[in-house]
Amino acid sequence: MKYFDIPKGTRDFSSIEINNRNFIINIIQNQFELFGFQPIETPSFEKTSIINGNYGEEGNSLIFRILNSGDVLKKKISDFLKSIKNLDKQNISSNVSDILTQYVSDKVLRYDLTVPLIRYIVMYKKQILFPFKRYQIQPVWRADKPQKGRFREFYQCDSDIISFHPSLWEEIELIQLGNSIFTKLNLPIIIYINHIDVLKGLIEISGIQKKFWKQFIICLDKWNKIGQELVKKEMKSKGMSSKSLDKISHFLNMKTSFHEIYEDLYIAFENSNSGKKGIDELYFIFKMIKHVSRKHIKLKWSLSLSRGMNYYTGIIWEMVPDNDMNEYSIGGGGRYNLSHFFGKKNVSGTGFSLGLDRIYLSMVQNNLFKKNINFCSSKILFINFGHKEVLHAYSIINFLREKGISTQLYPNNIRIGKQFKYAKKQNIPFVIIIGKNEIKNNKIKVKYIKEQLEKEYNNIHDLLKDLF
Amino acid sequence: MKYFDIPKGTRDFSSIEINNRNFIINIIQNQFELFGFQPIETPSFEKTSIINGNYGEEGNSLIFRILNSGDVLKKKISDFLKSIKNLDKQNISSNVSDILTQYVSDKVLRYDLTVPLIRYIVMYKKQILFPFKRYQIQPVWRADKPQKGRFREFYQCDSDIISFHPSLWEEIELIQLGNSIFTKLNLPIIIYINHIDVLKGLIEISGIQKKFWKQFIICLDKWNKIGQELVKKEMKSKGMSSKSLDKISHFLNMKTSFHEIYEDLYIAFENSNSGKKGIDELYFIFKMIKHVSRKHIKLKWSLSLSRGMNYYTGIIWEMVPDNDMNEYSIGGGGRYNLSHFFGKKNVSGTGFSLGLDRIYLSMVQNNLFKKNINFCSSKILFINFGHKEVLHAYSIINFLREKGISTQLYPNNIRIGKQFKYAKKQNIPFVIIIGKNEIKNNKIKVKYIKEQLEKEYNNIHDLLKDLF
Repeated sequence: MKYFDIPKGTRDFSSIEINNRNFIINIIQNQFELFGFQPIETPSFEKTSIINGNYGEEGNSLIFRILNSGDVLKKKISDFLKSIKNLDKQNISSNVSDILTQYVSDKVLRYDLTVPLIRYIVMYKKQILFPFKRYQIQPVWRADKPQKGRFREFYQCDSDIISFHPSLWEEIELIQLGNSIFTKLNLPIIIYINHIDVLKGLIEISGIQKKFWKQFIICLDKWNKIGQELVKKEMKSKGMSSKSLDKISHFLNMKTSFHEIYEDLYIAFENSNSGKKGIDELYFIFKMIKHVSRKHIKLKWSLSLSRGMNYYTGIIWEMVPDNDMNEYSIGGGGRYNLSHFFGKKNVSGTGFSLGLDRIYLSMVQNNLFKKNINFCSSKILFINFGHKEVLHAYSIINFLREKGISTQLYPNNIRIGKQFKYAKKQNIPFVIIIGKNEIKNNKIKVKYIKEQLEKEYNNIHDLLKDLF
Repeated sequence: MKYFDIPKGTRDFSSIEINNRNFIINIIQNQFELFGFQPIETPSFEKTSIINGNYGEEGNSLIFRILNSGDVLKKKISDFLKSIKNLDKQNISSNVSDILTQYVSDKVLRYDLTVPLIRYIVMYKKQILFPFKRYQIQPVWRADKPQKGRFREFYQCDSDIISFHPSLWEEIELIQLGNSIFTKLNLPIIIYINHIDVLKGLIEISGIQKKFWKQFIICLDKWNKIGQELVKKEMKSKGMSSKSLDKISHFLNMKTSFHEIYEDLYIAFENSNSGKKGIDELYFIFKMIKHVSRKHIKLKWSLSLSRGMNYYTGIIWEMVPDNDMNEYSIGGGGRYNLSHFFGKKNVSGTGFSLGLDRIYLSMVQNNLFKKNINFCSSKILFINFGHKEVLHAYSIINFLREKGISTQLYPNNIRIGKQFKYAKKQNIPFVIIIGKNEIKNNKIKVKYIKEQLEKEYNNIHDLLKDLF
């Protein structure tokens, strides 16, 4: 134990932080269950074979891989080198990552909660009742560059509906659920929404070649983050023509009402079936959300929202705190296709993921945690005057604990001043003194720390009445 | 995604299992807090430098190691081989594990909660208030051979007191806490207790050389598990003389009361200061536990209990279910020295660890989980008859959710029979029907699934009164 430090991008959590995190997690969990979602948990690592190819090249490089245990590690290094070298001859361009993955790592740490969910439903599809509404609150790990609000170990809170008969009511329920969570957290949000088919429509009317689709949506996602000029530059550098971009950039900048965008696009998408399908589904969502929401939900159409992911197929959306301070998303999701796993025509999932750390940060910035001044480890500390006195005190300690009152005995009979200091620093409000005199007179003495008062009681019942 | 399977020794958890696990975890957590312990959480991985040498050779081979990310993995394999080969020339006996650890893995998955605790207190010693009473409930990972009740990913629940003024009252509090947890779980236990100094006394009076200490306690730990004959054989094979063993084996087999063992050992330890100190401390514990416990605690002295670990220095103990079925420990702990980390004379920790999976297994074997027949995802399912009807239903859905009643809308207007089947399989007790007729007549129709009843209500308030 030479270096007392933790790995880059990870964190220790103190009691107060855990308290605050649990406050958020409990609200999320309650709302998930209120909407009929049930929890599952999956292992912290998955087989590499499950993960491969699911996160793209960038994602792949951010995956934490676990070294195989057992025999492979007990081999002599010379034998290991031989086997690697043989492989290397056949495929000289391999890099270390490929080799190690192939030979010494068949497990990876959970990178998100979506791939494990899909592995879960395919693995148990015969037992699962569909529509399957699951939520999952667990840590994930990414070898990302650590920065403010971004860590290498962080919690995601996901809820998804996997359905054999997909319906837009699933999106409506999920949007209501997302909004309801942030209402309970007292953190108002704006929900930005878009549709993959609308983006397909846009690329069609722009004249950008279809082969650029992947790069198109990755670039598009940065439109509001790094600004359109930089995005255009990036797109051009990747081969998309600036003329094509100009054809759609006025759409991407539209910040008007749903109906105004809808009318403009309706005409522009005359010849795009994808585009038309996309705006029709969005129309349905906007109309229904307006009708069914008890309180107003701030739902806005953002034509540049693309979520930068390859696997979405329908409605996509993101949640952003509704204030001047933050612009980053604190959650988001969308619909994805699962038909190929089931050999059925139309199986899909739709869900969203919340980032606990981003929410935590927003709660702090908006001063939304109850002040922790009253946070205390225990209600009562018993001063330790030595074995005899402790034996007398212990019947009261037992009594209080049976009543569910958190009670501590100072473990050693060191100076009383030090014992009191402990109570103060721990925010313990009451200190009970049972010394020689109290035993002789059959009294219980209590110090009220904050009030700087001292009181004597004849029995535990009088004391309880007074304290609680 | 070719192989839909999970890594060896890991598990998925369904809602019902999560429910049962949380039942256990909540009781443990409540009791920890009742005794004044506060939670901390540490990262899932620690730096290899923190871990090295702490778990012995066997432990070391069970640690899961994480491949470094970034540059090392992007290197060409040929360069990587060159650097390994150079190293290999200098130290031809290295095995793959050493090399990989040195070159491509500087992080390991959390193996227990004790080493992270010690790293934590040394790292934050200036901010921490001592005595530091922390609890921690988090998963740990070990590349152990999976078997019944033993997994590669499992939860530990630890509570420890780190103290600059160690006191046996700490042990007394912890034993009370451990017992109190299992009382609340309705799972009676026996607590076996011993003292490292008593074991030191035994090795002294046996005449076994001190250099065998490590092997002695590792073997001893199996005395009740594999039987004394096999242990004796193992000890002999490691060089301990059978004559020496015979001198102490009658002590190790003693199953009498504390006082009888105490009297025998008191004489035997005439010349062993360690031995005498050990039995004196145990005497104190037995006396005080008897005095302070509200209900009888089954505390037994087991002279062969050694916990098989190198780092304990004082009282050690284990908790075993008190029935005929299991013999395995479901928790245990002891005192360990921390003076060298603080440059102070007498800093030590004492704590215990509970294995959630072993407790879970015992709860199942003893039929202690409430029957899950009543487990349901939601209280109410709304049948989906199409958009118009859903719009009518939604005001009631909102109302119920605001009252905190878990409510689902079936997402699609497929056959009603299928929607009812979902409700039945999910154990949803009430199904609400708002179709064309109900809208026309302004009624709410409810099907009571279990009772096979149907009722109509004029408004939501009458319905609520009837249902809840």
